[in-house]
Amino acid sequence: MTNPAYFPQLSQLDVSGEMESTYEDIRLTLRVPWVAFGCRVLATFPGYLPLAWRRSAEALITRYAEQAADELRERSLLNIGPLPNLKERLYAAGFDDGEIEKVRRVLYAFNYGNPKYLLLITALSESMQMRPVGGAEVSSELRASIPKGHPKGMDPLLPLVDATKASTEVQGLLKRVADLHYHHGPASDFQALANWPKVLQIVTDEVLAPVARTEQYDAKSRELVTRARELVRGLPGSAGVQRSELMSMLTPNELAGLTGVLFMYQRFIADITISIIHITECLDGAEAASKSPFPI
Amino acid sequence: MTNPAYFPQLSQLDVSGEMESTYEDIRLTLRVPWVAFGCRVLATFPGYLPLAWRRSAEALITRYAEQAADELRERSLLNIGPLPNLKERLYAAGFDDGEIEKVRRVLYAFNYGNPKYLLLITALSESMQMRPVGGAEVSSELRASIPKGHPKGMDPLLPLVDATKASTEVQGLLKRVADLHYHHGPASDFQALANWPKVLQIVTDEVLAPVARTEQYDAKSRELVTRARELVRGLPGSAGVQRSELMSMLTPNELAGLTGVLFMYQRFIADITISIIHITECLDGAEAASKSPFPI
Repeated sequence: MTNPAYFPQLSQLDVSGEMESTYEDIRLTLRVPWVAFGCRVLATFPGYLPLAWRRSAEALITRYAEQAADELRERSLLNIGPLPNLKERLYAAGFDDGEIEKVRRVLYAFNYGNPKYLLLITALSESMQMRPVGGAEVSSELRASIPKGHPKGMDPLLPLVDATKASTEVQGLLKRVADLHYHHGPASDFQALANWPKVLQIVTDEVLAPVARTEQYDAKSRELVTRARELVRGLPGSAGVQRSELMSMLTPNELAGLTGVLFMYQRFIADITISIIHITECLDGAEAASKSPFPI
Repeated sequence: MTNPAYFPQLSQLDVSGEMESTYEDIRLTLRVPWVAFGCRVLATFPGYLPLAWRRSAEALITRYAEQAADELRERSLLNIGPLPNLKERLYAAGFDDGEIEKVRRVLYAFNYGNPKYLLLITALSESMQMRPVGGAEVSSELRASIPKGHPKGMDPLLPLVDATKASTEVQGLLKRVADLHYHHGPASDFQALANWPKVLQIVTDEVLAPVARTEQYDAKSRELVTRARELVRGLPGSAGVQRSELMSMLTPNELAGLTGVLFMYQRFIADITISIIHITECLDGAEAASKSPFPI
């Protein structure tokens, strides 16, 4: 695989055995229709993802975690104006209400899941860096589990366009949206939007280009990372695996690499949370973009 | 090695052969008395550091790179007051002028080198993420090489305290200063200051604790990362290795890990540049802290 669009990962369609069950359990527990790019990359480190997930699932399925994700989602509105009217732009590009509704479902599914993944990756990163996660005193109400399984009306597995097999045009779009964020590759969110190349082009050039990596955007991303750290310290149970525990299981460069990958995806997912909520705000307004689309 | 203080790296005293020459060439070319923590971690990825350094040295020894580092250093002043008077604090702790001068030499050596490493790691990270680095039109004056070798008056190799072999007290100090920054381990700068545990304790608790990871600190760190990206695009020659070129040389998790490690250290070194300049400002004032201590 020497395609420049390739970034090492185990795709959702290529896993089997323990990794397949881990991927499925992540989707069912977080109630989301995809395994995050970050997790698919973590899956390339032998043994880590299944272990780390087993150690985290119980804390992540609590009402505390659901409310923490709701808070992060609400904080993610950029408040940068003027906002382009995305619905008008899509009409003008020839999309009808039925097609727009399909795009909306994709955006809402990612809006639901992104802040949950931010919590998960933050917990994994803090543990890897040998700082305490979870174990706080939490009321029994917040300690309770939320129902496992996808919310009604959510597709259980969203189709993601594989950049390495896409047309040159779509590869270019995916590269452009990643570079706009100074990311190493396109988020799953953009792989899903790439099913409508024209939509991806419009959100990239007209919705995201004016805001991504501006001072205000970076300050918001920093706020999310900072707050996510505080929130994972308050989880009712522990989450993640400490670096010292992995020393006999991984090689030195795997240990270092894992630390870097977790650090990078914590910030990556904070960015993407902001970007997708910004797109949704341009489609349906601030209220719809910042509330949980699938409240418990 | 299951010491929790251990982070995978090749220490400066443990390298031989090609890696030893690479380490030496990095120190001589950048004119600094240490190989950065980030580079020592990169050295655990087979073949990467010697190759990446060979591809970068020529661009990094130019007057352009020296001036770019000078600019980053000048931008690094935090302007957060009131500043503790570090000299008074050290006198009060029993240090005399001779000892303070030794500490000063260490701080100035790191102040000289940190922004240079920020440029190097930024160039390596951008290349790894498949974005262009260098190759800009630059005047012949800025394209010229600066002298190779340590500046007069600089120790050629600063002794760094190995956290895994340090006393419990020093281990605790090193962990505290790393956690204060939400870092995965202590910078070389703090390993050097750990030769005077009382100094490390004072700068941690009185100089850095009030500022590290504040909004202003994070905004400054973001400014340095953003500006370093622009500066490496303007380098007179290319630097780093593109991810696609490494695909046959590294395993998938090594490729992913390297991307994460570079991303993490770019931000790590921006932070440390700010922190050490802040300490120096508290010792000798803003002017001394932000100017090149070894101008060409």
